Amino acid sequence: MRGLTGPMVLALAEAEAAFARGEVPVGAVVVGPTGTILARAGNQIEATADPTAHAELLALRAAAQALGTPRLVGCALYVTLEPCPMCAQAIAFARIARLYYGAEDPKGGGVDHGPRIFQSTSCHHRPDVYGLIGAAPAAELLQRFFRDRRPGKG
Amino acid sequence: MRGLTGPMVLALAEAEAAFARGEVPVGAVVVGPTGTILARAGNQIEATADPTAHAELLALRAAAQALGTPRLVGCALYVTLEPCPMCAQAIAFARIARLYYGAEDPKGGGVDHGPRIFQSTSCHHRPDVYGLIGAAPAAELLQRFFRDRRPGKG
Repeated sequence: MRGLTGPMVLALAEAEAAFARGEVPVGAVVVGPTGTILARAGNQIEATADPTAHAELLALRAAAQALGTPRLVGCALYVTLEPCPMCAQAIAFARIARLYYGAEDPKGGGVDHGPRIFQSTSCHHRPDVYGLIGAAPAAELLQRFFRDRRPGKG
Repeated sequence: MRGLTGPMVLALAEAEAAFARGEVPVGAVVVGPTGTILARAGNQIEATADPTAHAELLALRAAAQALGTPRLVGCALYVTLEPCPMCAQAIAFARIARLYYGAEDPKGGGVDHGPRIFQSTSCHHRPDVYGLIGAAPAAELLQRFFRDRRPGKG
């Protein structure tokens, strides 16, 4: 995690905790307008039997609870993997100001791949997007997770 | 609601209840493989301060809780409005077999408008989609809601 500081380090720690739980290792952190950590979460799909329990959605919901409003004006989201279309649209609904993501996701991403949610006519709020922040450790963790689960690995 | 039967009538009732709570009037129902109603919900964004609390997401999560799995294989979702990109992707993640929706949503929809989530390379499960089921009462409810909130209406 050389060179990485601040919220993305916390997001990676959430991804590692998700890995240890047997979840796809993705972690997310929401930072408030003054730099306060409002929420942090890792994937919880299997543990909670919730198909929507991606790290980003859990962190957005927890941050909204913390602030008492569904509109996270001036907040930033840090996530270890490019958000999927579901999470990208949730980021837009939540009015997130800045999105920082780690590894890119050509197969399932919805920000710089696939439907490119923030460029769509259906998107009415666009965060500033900074990709490939801390990409190497985030990608390594994901590769290790899926390698361990490859059929034939026993 | 002439001609409408079954789950879409329940979804419309959820939309009307959302209207009465001051939420954008959208309702959703998840039906199991044998026709059982697994979950029903209306929008709860303002009431719960949750930017992701669309009717579809709430119904999908409740149905997954009811079945104890994030994968709603063989289930159908009925919703009064064309799902947004967030909900469309959640429907794909949840492995919903059939989607029935009411009014179309050219500005915010993500199924037959905007990013057309199910046609994207990032979508790995595509439900059968049946649009404009009970569209008239669903659209009338939405039009009434937004008319009441138009600036200058006092």
